[in-house]
Amino acid sequence: MIIIINLKTYQQGKAVIKLAKKIQKVNNKIIIGAQASDIYELAKQTKLKIFAEHVDPYEPGRYTGFIIPEAVKKDGAIGTFLNHSEHKLDFKTIKKTLKRCKQIKLKTAIFVKNLKEAKKIEKLKPDYLIYEPPELVAGKISVSNAKPEIIEKIAKKLKMKFLVGAGIKTKEDIKTSKKLGASGIAVSSAITKAKDPEKSLKNLIE
Amino acid sequence: MIIIINLKTYQQGKAVIKLAKKIQKVNNKIIIGAQASDIYELAKQTKLKIFAEHVDPYEPGRYTGFIIPEAVKKDGAIGTFLNHSEHKLDFKTIKKTLKRCKQIKLKTAIFVKNLKEAKKIEKLKPDYLIYEPPELVAGKISVSNAKPEIIEKIAKKLKMKFLVGAGIKTKEDIKTSKKLGASGIAVSSAITKAKDPEKSLKNLIE
Repeated sequence: MIIIINLKTYQQGKAVIKLAKKIQKVNNKIIIGAQASDIYELAKQTKLKIFAEHVDPYEPGRYTGFIIPEAVKKDGAIGTFLNHSEHKLDFKTIKKTLKRCKQIKLKTAIFVKNLKEAKKIEKLKPDYLIYEPPELVAGKISVSNAKPEIIEKIAKKLKMKFLVGAGIKTKEDIKTSKKLGASGIAVSSAITKAKDPEKSLKNLIE
Repeated sequence: MIIIINLKTYQQGKAVIKLAKKIQKVNNKIIIGAQASDIYELAKQTKLKIFAEHVDPYEPGRYTGFIIPEAVKKDGAIGTFLNHSEHKLDFKTIKKTLKRCKQIKLKTAIFVKNLKEAKKIEKLKPDYLIYEPPELVAGKISVSNAKPEIIEKIAKKLKMKFLVGAGIKTKEDIKTSKKLGASGIAVSSAITKAKDPEKSLKNLIE
């Protein structure tokens, strides 16, 4: 079971390191998504698998203000998210960025909003594909409750493994997602906004 | 004389720290622009004034894949660039980002392409305003050679101090810029692409 925790921009600096250490205590095989500005310290202070939350498709050179794949890799990230519903990219940009990431062996986890997008992105052969219906992201209803038939359909129509995310909060959500064909889950607010993140994570995955 | 060196994305990780240390040896009052991913280490290992090359206008929270002002400030940046010709923003976004930066006391250096944009941005009261004609950025002809009359005009029409940049490579460029009314200069390739950055910087500013 692959578990991704997207830290988004809820915390920065020391606070995010503290949170990551709590996550690590529960399970150090978890993938976390981090702001580029936090990756260096997270890689130094934890053994978690760190993904940037986004990178731009450019080569080293000009491109003032962009974050290139080499930058996060050198800081210790092993991969990057792309195309999260809060940071949608056009297909051409996804393709270009994925190519650049493959060049430098930076893994990619690409978010998709539906089966159609999943099939299109699958052709690009990312390392991970994550189905998150945008309307459920950071919401109260979980993807496994709201979209079981789509998860099943994706499992049938895709050749590659995939994860699901959006609104996942309980052990039951994970169990259902697994049963429907998902190989992993992506969460965010259930952990990042929890009063006791360690306890919440334990309750969720143990 | 304010000197800004925009490191762009020419180098990352250890290489950019090495370059920054060379810059510091020549003058530790210099402002450098850095990728968000490099700020933490640069702040720890040098005494240079570090500006992010860009930040997004969001609050801590969701916003997967964006870099918020708090993130670079906590890493040790004292300011941020905005609206570089390689990373243009619409006026609304500049205004919103500047407001967020002021809330957390992160300084702002805003690039403008002409007098019209300079006058518009001046009203937002950024800490620095940098005139760079986009067609000269990373080119062979310096702004002081190509646009002396515009620099003079900006000096006359603006109330706030301003810097100039684009193609600046020689002591003479700096002298001319100063004479025309600029309070500082911004460079990039003259240092970042130099075979001997320390020597090039000495030749430029000493």
